Amino acid sequence: MTKKINHIGIAVTNLDAAIPFYRDHLGMAFEGTEEVADQKVRVAFLQVGESRIELLEPTAEDSPVAKFLAKNGEGIHHIAYEVDDIEKALAGMKEQGVRLIDETPRRGAHNSLIAFLHPKATGGVLTEICQAGEH
Amino acid sequence: MTKKINHIGIAVTNLDAAIPFYRDHLGMAFEGTEEVADQKVRVAFLQVGESRIELLEPTAEDSPVAKFLAKNGEGIHHIAYEVDDIEKALAGMKEQGVRLIDETPRRGAHNSLIAFLHPKATGGVLTEICQAGEH
Repeated sequence: MTKKINHIGIAVTNLDAAIPFYRDHLGMAFEGTEEVADQKVRVAFLQVGESRIELLEPTAEDSPVAKFLAKNGEGIHHIAYEVDDIEKALAGMKEQGVRLIDETPRRGAHNSLIAFLHPKATGGVLTEICQAGEH
Repeated sequence: MTKKINHIGIAVTNLDAAIPFYRDHLGMAFEGTEEVADQKVRVAFLQVGESRIELLEPTAEDSPVAKFLAKNGEGIHHIAYEVDDIEKALAGMKEQGVRLIDETPRRGAHNSLIAFLHPKATGGVLTEICQAGEH
């Protein structure tokens, strides 16, 4: 069902300070930034193979990423797996008894559809599933 | 330089309890387990696209993963990026002033060569680079 790792979301206090490690030292292609208003973050995208690293900088104090940083400091925030049909994937997991945060998908970066699973279902790893946006 | 995400290492207390979420709910192909004596872990491999999820269960109390679990609980332990030539990659990063834990590579799972970068260099994310083993 899961096709690939779509991205790994990493919480950082400052995008400009975080980008050089991934771009210059690990040699990933920097693809630009985007503001995701719904999640109150500014996101930098770096491509690595079929996946991306997404650096997440909060744009407001009540951003989920700001709360994560206050509690944990900088570090990996979530893993996102790509599926072809997110509605079908969510329905299947619900049927299997997997706890979900989002029972219906919402809009993510790059016009994707995303949903978070409940950390209780995933051994403490914040896990997103996503369906790529139409181009 | 970095070709792809080779794997994401996730620390768990019990492999048998952790595997079903990835295999049955996310639908990843379970590829078996391997004991990595050097790191005192038993590892379960699950394939997703060009990458793997590696679930890490400590086999001794002084295993680095046992210490991680005691401090953080279950969760993402490290990200590993694959390179073609690990010696060259390490030399390049050293020249750029990136702090390394391993200045020379050591043996990882599947006969790979691995080296960890220093968390101070990577914004708190434990980062491994690896070169795939010969088959």
